Amino acid sequence: MDDRPMQPLKPGATIGILGGGQLGRMLALAAARLGFDCHVYCPEPDSPAFRVAARHTVGAYDDAEALATFASSVDVVTYEFENVPAAAAEVIAACRPLYPDARALATTQDRVAEKIFLSFGAGVEVAPFAAIDGEADIETAIGVTGLPAILKTRRFGYDGKGQAKVGTLDELREALERFGGDCVLEGLISFESELSAIVVRGADGLAEVYDIGENRHENHILSETIVPAPLAAETLAAARALGLAIAEKLGYVGTLGVEMFLVRDQGEERLLVNELAPRVHNSGHWTEDAAVTSQFENHIRAVAGWPLGAVTRTAPVRMLNLIGDAAADPLAILADPSARLHLYGKREIRAGRKMGHVNYLDR
Amino acid sequence: MDDRPMQPLKPGATIGILGGGQLGRMLALAAARLGFDCHVYCPEPDSPAFRVAARHTVGAYDDAEALATFASSVDVVTYEFENVPAAAAEVIAACRPLYPDARALATTQDRVAEKIFLSFGAGVEVAPFAAIDGEADIETAIGVTGLPAILKTRRFGYDGKGQAKVGTLDELREALERFGGDCVLEGLISFESELSAIVVRGADGLAEVYDIGENRHENHILSETIVPAPLAAETLAAARALGLAIAEKLGYVGTLGVEMFLVRDQGEERLLVNELAPRVHNSGHWTEDAAVTSQFENHIRAVAGWPLGAVTRTAPVRMLNLIGDAAADPLAILADPSARLHLYGKREIRAGRKMGHVNYLDR
Repeated sequence: MDDRPMQPLKPGATIGILGGGQLGRMLALAAARLGFDCHVYCPEPDSPAFRVAARHTVGAYDDAEALATFASSVDVVTYEFENVPAAAAEVIAACRPLYPDARALATTQDRVAEKIFLSFGAGVEVAPFAAIDGEADIETAIGVTGLPAILKTRRFGYDGKGQAKVGTLDELREALERFGGDCVLEGLISFESELSAIVVRGADGLAEVYDIGENRHENHILSETIVPAPLAAETLAAARALGLAIAEKLGYVGTLGVEMFLVRDQGEERLLVNELAPRVHNSGHWTEDAAVTSQFENHIRAVAGWPLGAVTRTAPVRMLNLIGDAAADPLAILADPSARLHLYGKREIRAGRKMGHVNYLDR
Repeated sequence: MDDRPMQPLKPGATIGILGGGQLGRMLALAAARLGFDCHVYCPEPDSPAFRVAARHTVGAYDDAEALATFASSVDVVTYEFENVPAAAAEVIAACRPLYPDARALATTQDRVAEKIFLSFGAGVEVAPFAAIDGEADIETAIGVTGLPAILKTRRFGYDGKGQAKVGTLDELREALERFGGDCVLEGLISFESELSAIVVRGADGLAEVYDIGENRHENHILSETIVPAPLAAETLAAARALGLAIAEKLGYVGTLGVEMFLVRDQGEERLLVNELAPRVHNSGHWTEDAAVTSQFENHIRAVAGWPLGAVTRTAPVRMLNLIGDAAADPLAILADPSARLHLYGKREIRAGRKMGHVNYLDR
């Protein structure tokens, strides 16, 4: 891997994006506004991001040859999801700069590595946790977390997939078997609210954090984000500082999503970090319409080695995800002329599928 | 042509765009945010808009077969420039809805037809004018406009091309010969400022007008637009009303640029309409960063038969065009973190070429 400091991309350079879903699509749109070309790599034909990019490659994430060809056709590579296989990241990084880098990927794609980094590397609080590879680890793990707890696969979980709440030893055994081992057990946290810090850090080490949002979920899928989160100024400041500290400790380049729980213990507030996403994040979609520079554009600027744009919020905003049938009648949404509608160009509405989102300014 | 009232496009429908320059590119980006696919038709290979569209066709505007194939592949057709040949418009309109429609095109692509429509159809004031097809018309024309005057080709002029200021009969003859006849002579207007009304009108007849901007030119090319124009509220209201009236009279669907001169005669203000553009307009580029809904998105909504979005301005703004070398060092522009940079992805910087623009919010 090339360890020389990154040179800013030239205008008109090509940005490679791994992943062709809505995040890749919005990254490509942001890149286009800055005059960059994009080349999107994704295993699924007809991916939404393909249709707004200068080039695309349909390829598997374990096809080293296709990945190398892709990488050599672009000037820098980034991605829309944290589950880029380590081998794929290696093939790419051997050829072109990869941002966020291999360390950010390795740290965030494994829940145990992530929690170890957070609690020991970054010194921030997380829920009690213990790795469980198999039956033999169960007793120790429960000793750490107690029951009930949440069993999660170490890798490839999202939107509540690969996790199960377990109240008894039997439930834990059953879930562990179902997941096939390689899990982490987390203590159940009784939190008051879930917050997001969307941090962006440039190749020059300068970092910014957007105003903190409060997230609400339905069926384990993000349903809405309210910004600013209706909390005390000190809480918001603490959440911002926490996000910035994590990005700094990771030596991160790009947009980073930091999910946190706000816990109240006998009146005292604590912030526990739940999860990191080394990419633009659903809870940052409000920035497209209510911030001077969106999380997408700032991610592109960061990976291009360009200076970051102002993250100043321009209005109070509520981001509502359009999941499944909620996207079936966009004209009803647009009956409100201030509704800022975003649709992802997915061909088919399916239950639980993120089809788009709406930003409501001034709420 | 199909005269039935337009049905709103279904989500994910395909919008055809004639012209692959920066306006087509920004239209395609706006369409993508709403989940539409775009198919861009343009004679030049590697056009900027091709690189953000799902499909493109390299074809000539007089290739009826290619145009028909293009039109039949999309759900509605729009364009980025007024010089779509009438025959091309006919081929397309026979096959798919074309917005803005053939009447808008015919009216605006011929300076004489435009001025006749404006003064007799819409009842608004324009500079004194007279058609000059050849030598025989010169005397009558000068009788109308006086000298000095401006000779312009009836068609295909832009950015000062195809026009000449003429102070004497000899200069007029020389320019007429150079342009090959088919011209219009316009009286020279001594104006205080040039204003733009960016109007958008939906298929349902509902129309909105953005806040009025003041334009400044260099070498006949738009250099900057200041919004709101620093003028009296009554002047701005009159300019807005004028823009709306013209769109209404044209039965227009889409975004319409209306350029006006503000003239002061012994203290009394008058607005003279200089030119119409049946498309998104350079003087409306500020709307991308300082209005709830951009002129591009509203154009797409209008031609899709979707409701318009709010045109509310969110900040004072100055739009600065990046012409030629002004785009050579984008990082210098981005040293101001509030600068909203847009680059068009043109491969080569040339003198006089529009390479991008910057919106400065709060000026």
